[in-house]
Amino acid sequence: MGIVLRGGTIVTAVDYYKADIRIEGEKIVAIGKEIILPEDRILDVEGHLLLPGGVDVHTHFDLPVGNTATADDFISGTQGAIMGGTTTIIDYATQFKGQTLKAALANWHAKAQGNCYVDYGFHMAITEWNDDIAEEIGWLSQSAGVTSIKLYMAYKNFLQVDDDILFQALVKSKQCGVLVCVHCENGDMIYNLVKRYRSQGNVTPYYHPLSRPIVAEEEAVYRIIALAHAAQSLVYIVHLSSNNALQIVMKAKCRGNRVYAETCPQYLLLDESYYSKDHFESAKYVISPPLRKKENQDFLWRGLHDGMLDVVATDHCSFNFHGQKDAGLHDFSMIPNGIPGVENRLGLLYTYGVVPGKISINTFVNVTATQPAKIFGLFPRKGTIAPGSDADIVVWDISDVSVISAQVQQQRVDYTPYEGFQQKGKALHVFLRGQQVVQNGNLCDEDPKGIYLLRKLI
Amino acid sequence: MGIVLRGGTIVTAVDYYKADIRIEGEKIVAIGKEIILPEDRILDVEGHLLLPGGVDVHTHFDLPVGNTATADDFISGTQGAIMGGTTTIIDYATQFKGQTLKAALANWHAKAQGNCYVDYGFHMAITEWNDDIAEEIGWLSQSAGVTSIKLYMAYKNFLQVDDDILFQALVKSKQCGVLVCVHCENGDMIYNLVKRYRSQGNVTPYYHPLSRPIVAEEEAVYRIIALAHAAQSLVYIVHLSSNNALQIVMKAKCRGNRVYAETCPQYLLLDESYYSKDHFESAKYVISPPLRKKENQDFLWRGLHDGMLDVVATDHCSFNFHGQKDAGLHDFSMIPNGIPGVENRLGLLYTYGVVPGKISINTFVNVTATQPAKIFGLFPRKGTIAPGSDADIVVWDISDVSVISAQVQQQRVDYTPYEGFQQKGKALHVFLRGQQVVQNGNLCDEDPKGIYLLRKLI
Amino acid sequence: MGIVLRGGTIVTAVDYYKADIRIEGEKIVAIGKEIILPEDRILDVEGHLLLPGGVDVHTHFDLPVGNTATADDFISGTQGAIMGGTTTIIDYATQFKGQTLKAALANWHAKAQGNCYVDYGFHMAITEWNDDIAEEIGWLSQSAGVTSIKLYMAYKNFLQVDDDILFQALVKSKQCGVLVCVHCENGDMIYNLVKRYRSQGNVTPYYHPLSRPIVAEEEAVYRIIALAHAAQSLVYIVHLSSNNALQIVMKAKCRGNRVYAETCPQYLLLDESYYSKDHFESAKYVISPPLRKKENQDFLWRGLHDGMLDVVATDHCSFNFHGQKDAGLHDFSMIPNGIPGVENRLGLLYTYGVVPGKISINTFVNVTATQPAKIFGLFPRKGTIAPGSDADIVVWDISDVSVISAQVQQQRVDYTPYEGFQQKGKALHVFLRGQQVVQNGNLCDEDPKGIYLLRKLI
Amino acid sequence: MGIVLRGGTIVTAVDYYKADIRIEGEKIVAIGKEIILPEDRILDVEGHLLLPGGVDVHTHFDLPVGNTATADDFISGTQGAIMGGTTTIIDYATQFKGQTLKAALANWHAKAQGNCYVDYGFHMAITEWNDDIAEEIGWLSQSAGVTSIKLYMAYKNFLQVDDDILFQALVKSKQCGVLVCVHCENGDMIYNLVKRYRSQGNVTPYYHPLSRPIVAEEEAVYRIIALAHAAQSLVYIVHLSSNNALQIVMKAKCRGNRVYAETCPQYLLLDESYYSKDHFESAKYVISPPLRKKENQDFLWRGLHDGMLDVVATDHCSFNFHGQKDAGLHDFSMIPNGIPGVENRLGLLYTYGVVPGKISINTFVNVTATQPAKIFGLFPRKGTIAPGSDADIVVWDISDVSVISAQVQQQRVDYTPYEGFQQKGKALHVFLRGQQVVQNGNLCDEDPKGIYLLRKLI
Repeated sequence: MGIVLRGGTIVTAVDYYKADIRIEGEKIVAIGKEIILPEDRILDVEGHLLLPGGVDVHTHFDLPVGNTATADDFISGTQGAIMGGTTTIIDYATQFKGQTLKAALANWHAKAQGNCYVDYGFHMAITEWNDDIAEEIGWLSQSAGVTSIKLYMAYKNFLQVDDDILFQALVKSKQCGVLVCVHCENGDMIYNLVKRYRSQGNVTPYYHPLSRPIVAEEEAVYRIIALAHAAQSLVYIVHLSSNNALQIVMKAKCRGNRVYAETCPQYLLLDESYYSKDHFESAKYVISPPLRKKENQDFLWRGLHDGMLDVVATDHCSFNFHGQKDAGLHDFSMIPNGIPGVENRLGLLYTYGVVPGKISINTFVNVTATQPAKIFGLFPRKGTIAPGSDADIVVWDISDVSVISAQVQQQRVDYTPYEGFQQKGKALHVFLRGQQVVQNGNLCDEDPKGIYLLRKLI
Repeated sequence: MGIVLRGGTIVTAVDYYKADIRIEGEKIVAIGKEIILPEDRILDVEGHLLLPGGVDVHTHFDLPVGNTATADDFISGTQGAIMGGTTTIIDYATQFKGQTLKAALANWHAKAQGNCYVDYGFHMAITEWNDDIAEEIGWLSQSAGVTSIKLYMAYKNFLQVDDDILFQALVKSKQCGVLVCVHCENGDMIYNLVKRYRSQGNVTPYYHPLSRPIVAEEEAVYRIIALAHAAQSLVYIVHLSSNNALQIVMKAKCRGNRVYAETCPQYLLLDESYYSKDHFESAKYVISPPLRKKENQDFLWRGLHDGMLDVVATDHCSFNFHGQKDAGLHDFSMIPNGIPGVENRLGLLYTYGVVPGKISINTFVNVTATQPAKIFGLFPRKGTIAPGSDADIVVWDISDVSVISAQVQQQRVDYTPYEGFQQKGKALHVFLRGQQVVQNGNLCDEDPKGIYLLRKLI
Repeated sequence: MGIVLRGGTIVTAVDYYKADIRIEGEKIVAIGKEIILPEDRILDVEGHLLLPGGVDVHTHFDLPVGNTATADDFISGTQGAIMGGTTTIIDYATQFKGQTLKAALANWHAKAQGNCYVDYGFHMAITEWNDDIAEEIGWLSQSAGVTSIKLYMAYKNFLQVDDDILFQALVKSKQCGVLVCVHCENGDMIYNLVKRYRSQGNVTPYYHPLSRPIVAEEEAVYRIIALAHAAQSLVYIVHLSSNNALQIVMKAKCRGNRVYAETCPQYLLLDESYYSKDHFESAKYVISPPLRKKENQDFLWRGLHDGMLDVVATDHCSFNFHGQKDAGLHDFSMIPNGIPGVENRLGLLYTYGVVPGKISINTFVNVTATQPAKIFGLFPRKGTIAPGSDADIVVWDISDVSVISAQVQQQRVDYTPYEGFQQKGKALHVFLRGQQVVQNGNLCDEDPKGIYLLRKLI
Repeated sequence: MGIVLRGGTIVTAVDYYKADIRIEGEKIVAIGKEIILPEDRILDVEGHLLLPGGVDVHTHFDLPVGNTATADDFISGTQGAIMGGTTTIIDYATQFKGQTLKAALANWHAKAQGNCYVDYGFHMAITEWNDDIAEEIGWLSQSAGVTSIKLYMAYKNFLQVDDDILFQALVKSKQCGVLVCVHCENGDMIYNLVKRYRSQGNVTPYYHPLSRPIVAEEEAVYRIIALAHAAQSLVYIVHLSSNNALQIVMKAKCRGNRVYAETCPQYLLLDESYYSKDHFESAKYVISPPLRKKENQDFLWRGLHDGMLDVVATDHCSFNFHGQKDAGLHDFSMIPNGIPGVENRLGLLYTYGVVPGKISINTFVNVTATQPAKIFGLFPRKGTIAPGSDADIVVWDISDVSVISAQVQQQRVDYTPYEGFQQKGKALHVFLRGQQVVQNGNLCDEDPKGIYLLRKLI
């Protein structure tokens, strides 16, 4: 017995056509006409789009930061994801100083296990380097299904690593089939600028972007591409925020450097002017890299349109405005950095990208599902609608209109940066490996059904 | 009753998966498992790739040039095409001075009608401009299925038009939903350089590329993009040959200009050194733009890889070495310009692009079938493998190895510029709208089955 | 007997030092201390700068346009020049269709002879091309002292020439040691845009810049550099107005193309917003290329600072607001194009470039005197302060502050585009070939002393 | 009583004219005709060029490296300088870890004092950073005449500093009017590449350039410009070696970044192929950055021509082939890095730049004397020929032809990298602050006459 989604319009990164989809067990088994077998259950999806489930490759759930932790854990975070049409997330497990990668991974498995409403994988963020850790990279990728690591060029004295480590990690990762993801901002520059602003008594969130100027990002992007080039390795740039950084990526791609770049909805839709909001409201937008001047947005949309930006992920990392963000009430550098969004990614991209024609519906699927799955070793299991792939399908109701608000969100955080934004289209039904988990916009079941994904070598 | 291709691996511009394809009549109706109906004929294609039929959007069949005509007419040209895995061509109908577009189109229909072994459409090359012609653009696109025109910036005193006409044509085309294709070389510059070389007695084919330097192409590409920008219109650059021109296209795309670019196998695989061959052999390679220095090739491959070049077409325009090319034995400028290739496009791209990893198999499909179909108003009827699309399918035998040679080609021309090139992979079987037209590498039938395609507005 | 300027500070394109200058006859003969001879007349210039007399290589005096002529002839034009510290001008003699170059030059000599208060030379603007004209280029440069010609890429059906003529002129000029100056705007594009705006009833000066967009300039600059490259010749771009065009010049220079570029005070100081003035006031600023958006100005200043822009000239071409500019009251395309400025060049550059530190005082001298003299074959006779050079010296009083106004100008035109602009510094005394022609800011003498300059081959 | 140089042709960065020069005491007092006073001594220099004495702002004399020191000390180094037409050098005093700047400077004064045949100044190379050192920067510039410091981005674990120090040094220097000079190569990248080659047994000098690829320089140049931009400070890039790095400098200049760049004769004239010489000969060319592929040279010459490269200095740092370079016979990374050249700079630039027309004679003076003096606070005392300037004058005999050889050099090192290079032109006579120190190509006197130069704030 199977399930047939009948009458919808299938969208992939390249195609757009009307056909039925037949699901058996966890998989899509057939697409087309005359494919219904006698005992199949039939769901009429006429008039709706059928999208591959979204793949959000940049989340931070249940992440300890200082003596607090992100507002969303794996339960609320993946509830948000599934309701928004995202069926796979890859979260950043983090190795803190002194930890083995094995311990770090076990820690993250413990957080996620049994709590996920979507399928999940892990990257491994690494904050130091030595022979043992180098050794463990092999284990991670061969045995633990983790085929990407992350390094930070920012957050001096905390997460930041130097060029020596970056280079060694790039070389080692390449040997192991692992992709290196990098947070690109020059931490030393930022460290000094923050110090300067604080010493001048300039401590409101208004100074957050001034202390992390575009040139800090631009420089780091240039540097990591240079290091990857010398190490003959691939590299993936997370949360690219500015046109300057994009220009460097473009030139590198066109010179034959193998570099991927990700941007996020916040950089496409919000801007630096938010840091001028009153009453500490601007703290809600304190993220790194910071929001940029509005003129950057058009360039980022174009980068998606032209394939120069490969992925849209969220960098979902939520902190409550009351009780968490306010730790920095008198010092912007103490505000925990991050913003929620895992629930809104598809809705925002569809509404502000596809509807006004900035990107096609195919590009929308490509950057939210297909490319993330391809780049991170999950394709074709995830990221497309094709026989043999997991039946992760979003029935997208294009006629729906709603308004984003903290009051109605799944995300367990007391605000949303997109408060009041209109959304067109909606994840009406969602299937996760053949099981319907969202029906008419509601969670079907209290029971989390997500499983851990062993990812392929790059 | 249908036909089922069983056990092959389907490749589209994004997907790669094993599944059966069921064909009914002219269309693909289902893809997947358990889709076979009782009376279906089954063709075992296990171990082979199933590609969407190739779409070659740049051919010149039966084209009169001076007092000769191209060696290939629609019969031999489309026989070459189908044997090489191309199931759709778009040929350049040409309006000669004094003709109406209607007459020009009727002329081309007369040449093609009943003679085509593949489906076909027409572009309309225009060599002059006036109110009547402007008027006819509307008719062409609304009623005659021709939604692209071509203009020449080269061939002074013959095909070349000035910026005034280019601009008017861009504006008019945009109003009518027509795409303007442009041959980009500065004809005035070339005219003077040719004159100079001839006056110096430098008349061998060696001087052909010197009289058409890269700067002539680069300048024209820059200019047409500027004109299209001012006219707020799209533009499509045919047969881009050099890195310099590619750089301009890339910058334009990244600034938001809507420009498409096509390259050809000859620019990816052959180079300027061919003009140093002895015994007039170099005349075989006299084309415009000319072959460039070898270092351009890597950049063109990268342009395909990165999506900065959208299409690979052939500019198939064949003249016999004996009897036609030799008209220029004593004056390179009298050599008819052109090269055959419609039969070899897929084989060459697969062998020299996919096999060594310069482009992925998905990109291969994208630039040889999907993008050409999308850009020229044939998608999703052509250019993909999906339910509802025409069953134009190539069963590609990846294990086959052969050698390209004039002695074994379908093309009716006495040489091939790829003589002796090894080819990996081969169009074993080809289906055209559900009918098998090539079987085990042989034409099934003497009867041409191609039909005229009315193309959609852009 | 000589004259000694005692106690001033000499400024050249590289030096800045305090020393006396001794003049004998028309020449500077010594610089330094202890150089005074017994009978010398001594002028105390303590506290003042001693600048080489300005060289303005782009003026249009007594130019017939339609059935009117520029407001300034050689008398008033050169009076303005000398009062503003410019001691040499090069005016554009113009060959109108059907004229020989000889006749055109004779015509201009007749206008200028005996009427010039500064030394003068001519360029020759050419509007058509044939063998006779090509022949005359040799005569011009060998015998008539005219070593630069000008061609227009704009003004379709009037002054505009096509690429064929541009190319031939570049080749011929190179053979003759002549520099080709080019007005770079795509005339065909502009022609169509003007037609469109007029047909829409958009006829106020507001539409002037919209009909001549930056892309028209950018394209033409790219094209002329390409043509010069193919012709292996130098080229000089007049009145460059935009950052986009500057970027092209920079890249060309850095690739080894030999290209010079000139900008004008109006592009450094005025901007597009002036076309929004009421009551036809905006007609005063109708020039080609038009004024650009303000953000271009910083790039042009930087281009001067970095040596990427070689020259600041005025393109002085004055028409009265009442009686001339108003010919276009109901159609912006009928407004005679041009703006006065020969009198204000040094004052404006000093005030808005040197004083705020955008360019150094050395760069100021370089772009207003030294480079123009070098590029156009007048150096070291003009353009520097050195023994052996003509004693063309401006005693610049840096303490003076004044306000530019039509009411107090020498220029014989009923407005100035710089009305109300504050000026710092002033030409207190001016020497022309050893004769003092301005004293304490007043013309010394009614008698014009300027002579015709035979320029050297390039 | 003075000295008059009679009948020569004076060349400055902008001028070229025939005139006499009168010297009184240490200064030039007059230039021109009729300037000879009764008791003056007259030196006939008819037919020769009179150049401002060269200013070499990058030397390493008497520099301890490991347990050796450079072959040239201040005696032999400045003898080489003066014989080659260089009258001023600025040497890099070096603060080694643990030292105060005061101690470091005293150390260098002790080395130089009484030993210099040319005038000299010091930069201060700094290898660590703390509050005391920051404090001393003020003292250095205000009281000690040292207005430039140097930091290294390469030489990990030895001279290299991190971005934190770079940033602090840039900020502090700006406050003090000090210019920061930077060795731009990514030391971490190089450290790893060297380790890799050594671990592979690749230990010949052939691997030296492979371990220091262009991307290491390019990245560091990009980074330092970014840091300087964020610090709102100037920066000076020493020994730029590649086109890639030059492109970055150019773009930065054109965006308004205030960055200076220096190249050296070795990068203009020698190339990577030298590392393929047999018998350890290639060790003679082991320098950092290494010699690059030949195609870079044209770009560097063009950079000088266009003013994008500001200075040509030598980075003179000599080690004997026998007894010093051979420390690395079995490990290229143990070869002391450096090359001699202070004696050859003017001769090489004149012969290979001016004579073939790659740069003008004015540019030659500009980059070897004028700009170095201006940038490093010595102008107009040094770097030009003008009344009031020090009478540092080179009488350059353009008719002389010689061959460079270790056998005839002043430099006290057992080879020259320019062995066998032909030189055109020669420093026939040299004047240092009015005293003739070289006569007919010979040192006049055994007595060193150079003095220490207190440099001005930037």
